[in-house]
Amino acid sequence: MEGLKLITDNKLETNITVGDTVIGGDEVVIMAGPCAVESKEQLFITAGALKELGVKILRGGAFKPRTSPYAFSGLGEDGLKMLQDVSNTTGMAIITEVMNPNEVPMVAEYADILQVGSRNMQNFPLLQAVGNTNKPVLLKRGLAATITEWLFAAEYILAEGNQQVILCERGIRTFETYTRNTVDLSAVPIVKNLTNLPIIVDPSHATGINELVNPVSKGAVAMGADGLLIEVHPNPREALCDGEQSLTPEQFADLLVELEPICKAVGKRLHTICKKNS
Amino acid sequence: MEGLKLITDNKLETNITVGDTVIGGDEVVIMAGPCAVESKEQLFITAGALKELGVKILRGGAFKPRTSPYAFSGLGEDGLKMLQDVSNTTGMAIITEVMNPNEVPMVAEYADILQVGSRNMQNFPLLQAVGNTNKPVLLKRGLAATITEWLFAAEYILAEGNQQVILCERGIRTFETYTRNTVDLSAVPIVKNLTNLPIIVDPSHATGINELVNPVSKGAVAMGADGLLIEVHPNPREALCDGEQSLTPEQFADLLVELEPICKAVGKRLHTICKKNS
Amino acid sequence: MEGLKLITDNKLETNITVGDTVIGGDEVVIMAGPCAVESKEQLFITAGALKELGVKILRGGAFKPRTSPYAFSGLGEDGLKMLQDVSNTTGMAIITEVMNPNEVPMVAEYADILQVGSRNMQNFPLLQAVGNTNKPVLLKRGLAATITEWLFAAEYILAEGNQQVILCERGIRTFETYTRNTVDLSAVPIVKNLTNLPIIVDPSHATGINELVNPVSKGAVAMGADGLLIEVHPNPREALCDGEQSLTPEQFADLLVELEPICKAVGKRLHTICKKNS
Amino acid sequence: MEGLKLITDNKLETNITVGDTVIGGDEVVIMAGPCAVESKEQLFITAGALKELGVKILRGGAFKPRTSPYAFSGLGEDGLKMLQDVSNTTGMAIITEVMNPNEVPMVAEYADILQVGSRNMQNFPLLQAVGNTNKPVLLKRGLAATITEWLFAAEYILAEGNQQVILCERGIRTFETYTRNTVDLSAVPIVKNLTNLPIIVDPSHATGINELVNPVSKGAVAMGADGLLIEVHPNPREALCDGEQSLTPEQFADLLVELEPICKAVGKRLHTICKKNS
Repeated sequence: MEGLKLITDNKLETNITVGDTVIGGDEVVIMAGPCAVESKEQLFITAGALKELGVKILRGGAFKPRTSPYAFSGLGEDGLKMLQDVSNTTGMAIITEVMNPNEVPMVAEYADILQVGSRNMQNFPLLQAVGNTNKPVLLKRGLAATITEWLFAAEYILAEGNQQVILCERGIRTFETYTRNTVDLSAVPIVKNLTNLPIIVDPSHATGINELVNPVSKGAVAMGADGLLIEVHPNPREALCDGEQSLTPEQFADLLVELEPICKAVGKRLHTICKKNS
Repeated sequence: MEGLKLITDNKLETNITVGDTVIGGDEVVIMAGPCAVESKEQLFITAGALKELGVKILRGGAFKPRTSPYAFSGLGEDGLKMLQDVSNTTGMAIITEVMNPNEVPMVAEYADILQVGSRNMQNFPLLQAVGNTNKPVLLKRGLAATITEWLFAAEYILAEGNQQVILCERGIRTFETYTRNTVDLSAVPIVKNLTNLPIIVDPSHATGINELVNPVSKGAVAMGADGLLIEVHPNPREALCDGEQSLTPEQFADLLVELEPICKAVGKRLHTICKKNS
Repeated sequence: MEGLKLITDNKLETNITVGDTVIGGDEVVIMAGPCAVESKEQLFITAGALKELGVKILRGGAFKPRTSPYAFSGLGEDGLKMLQDVSNTTGMAIITEVMNPNEVPMVAEYADILQVGSRNMQNFPLLQAVGNTNKPVLLKRGLAATITEWLFAAEYILAEGNQQVILCERGIRTFETYTRNTVDLSAVPIVKNLTNLPIIVDPSHATGINELVNPVSKGAVAMGADGLLIEVHPNPREALCDGEQSLTPEQFADLLVELEPICKAVGKRLHTICKKNS
Repeated sequence: MEGLKLITDNKLETNITVGDTVIGGDEVVIMAGPCAVESKEQLFITAGALKELGVKILRGGAFKPRTSPYAFSGLGEDGLKMLQDVSNTTGMAIITEVMNPNEVPMVAEYADILQVGSRNMQNFPLLQAVGNTNKPVLLKRGLAATITEWLFAAEYILAEGNQQVILCERGIRTFETYTRNTVDLSAVPIVKNLTNLPIIVDPSHATGINELVNPVSKGAVAMGADGLLIEVHPNPREALCDGEQSLTPEQFADLLVELEPICKAVGKRLHTICKKNS
């Protein structure tokens, strides 16, 4: 990082606690759920299936950044209320995206983790706004961001006094068109070497392909990722957003079974299915 | 654009008028000035030199998006006031960047053209905010944005009712490290074919190298660009931002002399030095 | 170039002479013809049309590198003989690609300029083989080659004693999919600053799109290119290779008319249509 | 693959046998050794250390493709003879690179596996030449090759009648400069889905950084790679080529210990240290 003294360089262990889940410790934490909150029904079905598998953090977008202004862009605060309902019912924590610095206080009332999406990685007013909350922030890597730029973006949040930053690798843009993006799994050990921040991987956006979510998840954990952010939808074919990369609850359950031995092989435990296995 | 009917597809000629300058017509329009507003003195010296050369639109950043939170990030509203002073004195129009949707109304009081920077090309709340003003918007292409994504970003502004969008190619991120970015001059004729929007080129950010500003400017005009956005600083070595790519006023004057025959070769006039030549 | 003393760093003017054509001097030289030699008829029709427009260097591939082993890969030595026939009849010089170090002596008997394609830019045995001939070599930039790597590839040829290297920018691979490649026109002035070698641009492969050949050609010349390599086919729709980027002879003639004032604007003459204009 | 019927599409299991090692089956095969053959001493020390750890395939370059014509480019046939000596003494199989179609028969006399480097992935005469041998071919992915292009390159070899092709992912060129290349580990499951060919990963070239070889190796195996190609040098600081990415024999031994549980977690065995553990 070019001789700069950064808060991100601090090598003290930083574990981030959400409810009774610790991110950045000995457990591999799974955050799962639909790309977008579409309806109460969709959300309760998904959350129910995930909770049975021990998932404690539910993802779901109420504000969706979309390339086209004419695409479905989320239910807004109504979606946040649905997430809150599910949280109240299931006890699951909520991670959801915030796009507008203005809306940070409002979203922070509903969310347990604030997500900053890859398009906003260098939206500096937004970084400062989430840096001024006391909520953990999941900071996705920008599509064309170097690791150095990504850590500087984290530094914007840390510099405001919020030390709870979780980094999320979600694929970078390259010439390869077979996958939606090219997942840069090397970023996991590099970030681990350079900083004390937890890092997770989003295999769903990184690949854009249902059947690649499983192997990329395994690779990520083998390389030291602290967790995964996975899209699960009860009926991917009818999803309003990113159906082709969503797992069904059954596929997700199979993935957890295959992930567990990888977690053990690297000296960790899989957070998610502890309950189920006990 | 995948069968979508977009406002950007409209092939009616759209000329955008700023003061007595028409962007998108027979004239090649030059916007020039320092990367960042640093002081009244710096701004007046630069603006004075540019006005003598016929430049009618002054650029200068008061809000600067910077990779590091610890770098100089502009003078904020004080900078805007300095720009207004210069505008009042010289009659030049002002183009300046806005980063926060909140601040759009305030910046719009000072600026004649609102600039959305490349990091914010998909900052959708910001696009909607500038789309709700009546000021022309210069929309820079994102570092890793396809032309399709860029036009969809323009569509966000147009869809709010503001038809005055100027596109600005400023280089994309590739593997080549000799230049700061790789200028994609093909984007100029492609955008001209696909839309009715004016497109200009920023050779300063596109290359990051002083001596490449001249040839890239000539290439851009030969390929049909409606204008150029060029960094000029009275003393590039002492610039607080991007000095290595800024032209001195003398270099800028030389560039205009070389640009004029290129403009003529493509059937246009160079807006800038009309006065000087008369 | 990292402190290395390279032959490419030599700033003495290097003009390369092919017949009575000088490449690297005051004239913008046009090399044109079909992507692949398909038949005698196709070649004679094309060459006849080009010769009338003053073109003195005919391009045509007899050995075609193709992604798939099942695609048309050229007529081989039969194609070279057709090129020789046309050359004997029209007096035009021939540029054609060589792919195999073994075949360099054979191809060099037929060709006036040996072309090394972008896939072979770092095929070092091939570079050494063409470096051991006394024929000018046109060295295309690799799809993912930095300018530094490209100049080192030229150095392989120069180091064998052959000083007649012409560099050819033909687009690099980026994330943008609208065009076949992204033409890096900045490479033209950079190469001019760093070396004494002539540089030309191939707008046909760089864009892959018929209607972009014209504007990219104009940009290239405005930025200092010493020439252009352009695909022309009498019937692009029936071309066995790269038809979608080939110009008809009529489109090519129109291009020359538009190029001439650009050449003048940068203090050069267009080599090609001298005859026609006299 | 766009509707083409390719030999690479054949889903029959293809295992490739080298001595008593089977590539593509239940074992994860490790090929290791120095980047370049430098001397008999260097080679015997390295091979001795590797043999003790159960490595059965020794890598070492005698013909080295180098960006600069003035860099060390290998010992040529003398290097091949040293590899043969080591093979005779240790019983290890040899994998080494061939660059020139001419030299394929000669290199094939010494090598058990012929390596085609990434710069030569689309050197079609070379692909055809190795396709005409009866030796297994390791085909590295080109720096800017899509997976589709890579499989077509394999098809060139298969089409000549040689079915023994091993694919090797070694990183692609992206904008990220922290690592030498960006390893595209998604390619492993994609290739597994599309073809019957074994695929291995080269973590040394993919990252260019000593401490990343370990995590990338683990990720590759977790994602289904059939093996690894790893640079090991007795004294990396004095290596004539790529020292900064070579492991010491001690680091390599540590890696094997960490790899074994990952192999088990995905239902495979680590070929290499079977002996040691028994």
